[in-house]
Order: sequence, then structure tokens, then C-alpha cells
Amino acid sequence: MTANASFSADSSETPGLTDVDAYMVGLGQAARAAAARMRRATTGDKNRALSAMAERLAAARCEVLAANDRDLERGRANGLEAALLDRLALNEARFDAMLEGLAQVAALPDPVGEIDGLHSRPSGIQVGRMRVPLGVIGIIYESRPNVTLEAASLCLKSGNACILRGGSEAKESNAAIAACIREGLVDAGLPETAVQVVATTDRAAVGRLIAMPDFVDVIIPRGGKSLIERISREARVPVIKHLDGVCHVYIDATADPDKALAVAVNAKTHRYGTCNTMETLLVDAPLAETLLPRLAAAYAEHGVELRGCERTRAILPEAVAAGEADWHAEYLAPILAIRVVEGINEAIAHIERYGSHHTDAIITEHYGLARRFLAEVDSSSVMVNASTRFADGFEYGLGAEIGISTDKLHARGPVGLEGLTTLKYVVLGDGQIRQ
Amino acid sequence: MTANASFSADSSETPGLTDVDAYMVGLGQAARAAAARMRRATTGDKNRALSAMAERLAAARCEVLAANDRDLERGRANGLEAALLDRLALNEARFDAMLEGLAQVAALPDPVGEIDGLHSRPSGIQVGRMRVPLGVIGIIYESRPNVTLEAASLCLKSGNACILRGGSEAKESNAAIAACIREGLVDAGLPETAVQVVATTDRAAVGRLIAMPDFVDVIIPRGGKSLIERISREARVPVIKHLDGVCHVYIDATADPDKALAVAVNAKTHRYGTCNTMETLLVDAPLAETLLPRLAAAYAEHGVELRGCERTRAILPEAVAAGEADWHAEYLAPILAIRVVEGINEAIAHIERYGSHHTDAIITEHYGLARRFLAEVDSSSVMVNASTRFADGFEYGLGAEIGISTDKLHARGPVGLEGLTTLKYVVLGDGQIRQ
Repeated sequence: MTANASFSADSSETPGLTDVDAYMVGLGQAARAAAARMRRATTGDKNRALSAMAERLAAARCEVLAANDRDLERGRANGLEAALLDRLALNEARFDAMLEGLAQVAALPDPVGEIDGLHSRPSGIQVGRMRVPLGVIGIIYESRPNVTLEAASLCLKSGNACILRGGSEAKESNAAIAACIREGLVDAGLPETAVQVVATTDRAAVGRLIAMPDFVDVIIPRGGKSLIERISREARVPVIKHLDGVCHVYIDATADPDKALAVAVNAKTHRYGTCNTMETLLVDAPLAETLLPRLAAAYAEHGVELRGCERTRAILPEAVAAGEADWHAEYLAPILAIRVVEGINEAIAHIERYGSHHTDAIITEHYGLARRFLAEVDSSSVMVNASTRFADGFEYGLGAEIGISTDKLHARGPVGLEGLTTLKYVVLGDGQIRQ
Repeated sequence: MTANASFSADSSETPGLTDVDAYMVGLGQAARAAAARMRRATTGDKNRALSAMAERLAAARCEVLAANDRDLERGRANGLEAALLDRLALNEARFDAMLEGLAQVAALPDPVGEIDGLHSRPSGIQVGRMRVPLGVIGIIYESRPNVTLEAASLCLKSGNACILRGGSEAKESNAAIAACIREGLVDAGLPETAVQVVATTDRAAVGRLIAMPDFVDVIIPRGGKSLIERISREARVPVIKHLDGVCHVYIDATADPDKALAVAVNAKTHRYGTCNTMETLLVDAPLAETLLPRLAAAYAEHGVELRGCERTRAILPEAVAAGEADWHAEYLAPILAIRVVEGINEAIAHIERYGSHHTDAIITEHYGLARRFLAEVDSSSVMVNASTRFADGFEYGLGAEIGISTDKLHARGPVGLEGLTTLKYVVLGDGQIRQ
């Protein structure tokens, strides 16, 4: 097997490695071996490792921040844009948040070993399902170095080994954090290869990582849409992916107008750049005349540009005319598309046609319509009378989140520890044979 | 997009279709539309359709059997081998079993709409997960025409639309069964496109079916290993696949010898050609001297050829010397590889190295070892004191099975109705916004 051409197109800057393939296979083999040990790590083992990592990290605060400074300097010299430099930066507060994150993951219940539904069968066997680690998880991410620690802690707590491939901008920060992780694992008596950070910035390493089904059970890419699409296309192992969030709020005619206003404003303006931000507002015709002007006034206060269908513009002449592209758009910006619809069928049809199956909400006081919306809208999160911004692992009580999946299989929506595990059947017998 | 070359290599025998791609896209679009309707089908709708299909099928018994006779005649003329002709044949008993299968699926609980874990969050929202259909399922199978009905009934009951692609040997039988399915759907007021049987035997249709992510949510191939490997390699949508079953029984030193004998004989000899048949027996050294001769005598009665490691052959000189290939082998035949091991660690290491992660059992009376085996053996079914032959949807109480998954993600082990569904988050609020 050779690495995928599109991931090796970039100029290589391999630090002393002559054979990226062999290097990645080595990481894979070590991860597979570590996974066997991790599978039998107790909750105590894993929590001790998390706490040892926090100690090691706290002790290495200066070194880690200094490494981050070097990354930032190099980034500035290379002309990285401000937003990227901000994501790359580890200040004191972000450093404290990393330590706090480790404590939070340690406090989460361990999903591994839970047995569900154990029941007796007529044959005399008992059958149930046990939650177990996936095995080896490959995570590919971009500039934020704190993802290194987050990803490592979640994979560790769920009993998996992992191979982490961060952005080349953050290579010194990631290496410094990786050293603390390794020391913490060793302190707790777990294999240091349970968490491996890819030490080469050669892009061919990514091509190899996603094409080693013998050593890697699942790939989780965290990054821009083009990265994720490319990985999904070229991966030889399953990918838990997060593509776009074209989220809708549908305000039904029976909605409480005050709740509708509050939710619609929050869903758009709480944060513009997040995947669970509303991008299109659908308003039921009977409410449009009275509600749209109130909404427009609120959005104007936030400087949100409105793009409306013809019926919207008849009520809000200041709105720009929305075109077909607007219904598909994930603006990630203070822009909102608005459409007046005739009832729930038209709303659901719009969401089905233009949405990305991420998060969609109905605002209604009608029991039957709420029930229909919940059942019929085929999105990873479906809400009644709540802001789409709640679609988040922390808000859902998962304790932490490795990402949000827009896939239907395996994990859908925010992915926490459970999404990093799987269920196997366990059968308990007393010598039963099949007749 | 073009169909995959390897699936179009075969000679085309398209019945009047000039553009396979356009034909498949048409099926895909119709299936996607039907899926939206199926998502809101009630349990009553779906059960009425199943029962109407049974009536239509019972009324068309003669036509279906006549169509099957034509398939068999053509198969004989084309020199199909006897085993294939047997799988293709629908006799009266198999026809009755098809009708009985429909009644069984109708009697199964409907998984769709179940809400699990609904709980309140500090923000005031309630969060839970609702079980919903996957959407559109593509199933690719070989000569058995009864799979057409089984697959259709399971997809229907789980609220999915499906596109079925059976073997060309069974095309007349499948077409006759498909007609009854369509009539049953219409009788129950459901869209007839909820179940579509691909009417062309052109292999390019398969290449297209597995590469339409816009219209197909998951592919389930049922067939030989080479077919499944090819589909997995070329699919552009997730595949629930079933590869090989290299299953082990490990007899620990504390095992009850009579139970061990019964299970080891049953796991090998109950049926030779099934994926959950034991292929390698591992015997703990302290028990080998006394147990192996008893086992050998029992296997001799069944005509099972034994292939042993050196320590096995020291006790059973009649055994053939096993080579490295034997530990990897899925014989699907009256042949058994036997290895004497030193305790559970060696047994687990052997299973991890040579097994296919399908089904593995320990025979033991030792509590701690049973617990370790359950936790540490990374297979889709792990058993204590029971025959590997129990790894089956019916034996596990799933009521029916669309296949057995050797994947780790989504569905693992026997796949019943639940494996054809997914979980989405539902959020119930009262106007909550994110702070």
C-alpha cells in the first residue's frame, strides 16, 4: 500500500524520517499492542493516568508555554492569519482549562464493561451486550494544541489506544504536551504507546494513517470541510465525520411569540461561527405579519443581515432577496436566510431538501405538531422550543465531546465517551449446546 | 460519477435498459422519497403491509414456484453446481417458511420511536435519544430468492426503504416475489417504492448502488468473502459487512470435562459450513493428556480430520501436523485445528493473533478466568460454557437477522431490526436559550 497522492502532494518536512510508511506502520503496531492492554485497564488505572498527566503537565507549564511561544513565533513569521494564531495560542487560562478538562474526564463514569439487557433464552444461555473500547482511534486535527490533550484523555478513559495527528503549526506545543501524556501513562503503569502523537509533519503520514485497517479501527477528523471530505473519500477504515451544519428553526403558527423571538435570536446570534448556529429561519405564514418585524428589529440590534423569500420581503422590504444558494448556505456569519412557509409540511420538506441533518428546531405550543417534527425530521438533533445552540456534548450532559457526528451509523450527534466504544455480545452458559 | 470498473467487467444482460446509471439513480430517488413516508409509518401500517404481502404471496404461490422452476431450469442448462441450485430452489416447505417469516417479523416489537434516557439538564431542557430508521438500505445478495422477502420484511418493519439486488440466477423468482411485495405495500397504503428489486442483472448496477451516498445510507452485502471485500473497497457509503468466522473454543484446566466435550463437539460438528462453527480448539496443557483422547474419539465418530500442534500430536499421533495456515483457516469443513496452550494468556494471545473477532468461547469453572475472557477477547460474541453455534440472531432473541456483522462500528454480531435503525438526539424545551 502507498500513501494517498493527495495527502503527499504537500512539500515534505519530515524531521529525520526517511520512510514515513514504515514509521506509521510502527505507530500502528505499537497502538494495536497497547490497545490489548488498555482493554483490561481498570477505571482506577485510567483515572490515575489522567491525574498523573495533570501533575506532569502542571509541572511542565513553563516548557509547554515556551514551546507554544516558539510555534506562535514561527506562525507569525510564516504569515499565519490572526484567527489561526488565536486557535494556536495557549495562554495561562487555556492552560488551566486543559488541566480542568483532565479532572472532568476523570470524574466521568467509565462506560467500559457495562452489560445491558442480559436475559435468559429458551436454550438456557443468557445473552447480553457488553460495552467495550473500539481499539485504536486515529484523530486528525488542525491548529489547536489543546485538542491533543482532550483527544488523548477521552480515548484513554474509554479504554482505547490512539494515534494523534495535529497541525504542523502546533508541532512544538503538541510534542511538549505529548511528553507529559507519556509520562503520566508510565506513572500509572499503562503503556506509553497508548497515546502516540505523530512526530512527522509530512502529509503522507495522514494518507497512511487512514489506510491501515489492520492497526486503526476508526478515524475521527476534526477540521474544515475539505479536509474531512478528502479523508472520507480516501480512508480505508470507518470515519466518524462532521460535515456542515445548516440548521433551521421553524416557528409554527401556534408558537408563543416571546419564546419564538428569544430562541430565534439566540440560535442565530449567540455565536456565529459554530455548526449548531441557525442559518435559515422558517416562519409559518399566519405568524409572519406580526412576528417578522419584531424579529427584524432584534436582528438589526445584532447587525445581522437578513435574506428573505418574496413573502418575507413583502413584510420586511429591507431584507435582501434570497436565492437558491442561500437555502443551502452555512454562513457561519451574521447573515440569516428567512422563508415564510405554509405549515409544517412545507417546513419539513424545506429542511429535508436543504438542510444538512445536523440540528433543527420547531417552536410550537401544538402537541401533535411537536410530536410530528420530532419523528419526521431526520437530523442528528431535533428540538422543540429550544435553541439549536444546545446541540453540544456538554449541554447534553456527555461531560465531554470529541466532536459532533453528522453520520447516521454508529455515533450521531455529539460524540462523547460512549461514541468511542462499541457493544459486543456476551453469552453465559453452563455447557449448553445447540440442538 | 461512473460505475466501478470491476463491477461492470461482466457481460451485460440488461433487459431493455440502455442506461444503467440513470436507472439506478431513478431507484435511488424513489427510495429516498419513500423513506420520508416510511419514517412516519405507524407500527400498524407496517404490520398490515407484512400481512398483505403474505396474502399476496400465498395467492401467487403457483406463479412464484413456476418462476422459480424457470430459474432452476436455466441454472441447470447453464451448468450451475448442485449446491447453488439447492440454494436457488423454492420448494413447498421453503415457501411456507417465507410466509411464516413474514408473520414472525410482524410479531416483533417495533424499535422505531423508542426514546431512551430522557433526562433534565441544568439549563432546563430535557435530552434523550430516539430510535429512528436509517433511511435507505441497499442489500446485495446471491442466489437464495427467499432473502428477497426476508430483507424486505426487516427493512419495512424498521421503517426503512430498501433497494434489493439479488443474484441473476434467481431473477425470475425475485421478480415474482417483488410483485407480491409491491402489491402488499399498496394494499396497506404504503409507497410501492419502499421496496425496490433491481430489475437489471447488469453488474454495473452494483457499482452504482454502492456509490450513491445521496440516495443510499448503508449497504449490506450478503455473500462470499470476495464479493464483500470488493464492495467494502469500492463503496462510497457505509457497509455493514460480514467477513470470515475463525472461531475458537478454549478449554481451561478447570473446565468440567463432560461440558467441555459436549461443547467442543457441538461447536465443530453441529454444522460445518456456518460462520459460527469452531475452527480451532485450544486446550489448556494440564487437561490435554486426559481430554484430547476422549475428544479425538468423539470427532472420529463424526469423521472430523484433526490437525494438531506438536504437543497435540504427542498425545494424538493420528493428528496431521498443523502449519501456520491452519491457525488462520476458516475450513467450513469437517477439519479441526487443535493447539495445546499454557493457560489463558496464551489462549487469548492466539485468538487475538489468528482469530477473526467473530465468536470465541471459554470452557471453565473458574470465575476470574471467565470474567477475564469476557472482558479481554475482542470478538463480536464472547461466550462462557456455551457452543459458538449459538451466535445467531434467532438464538439471541433478535427474532430475525439480516446478517452478522464483523465490523466494530454501529452493529456488531447478529444484526436484527435494531441494527437497521439509529439514534438521534431529541431535546424538549419550553423556550430555553443558551447562555
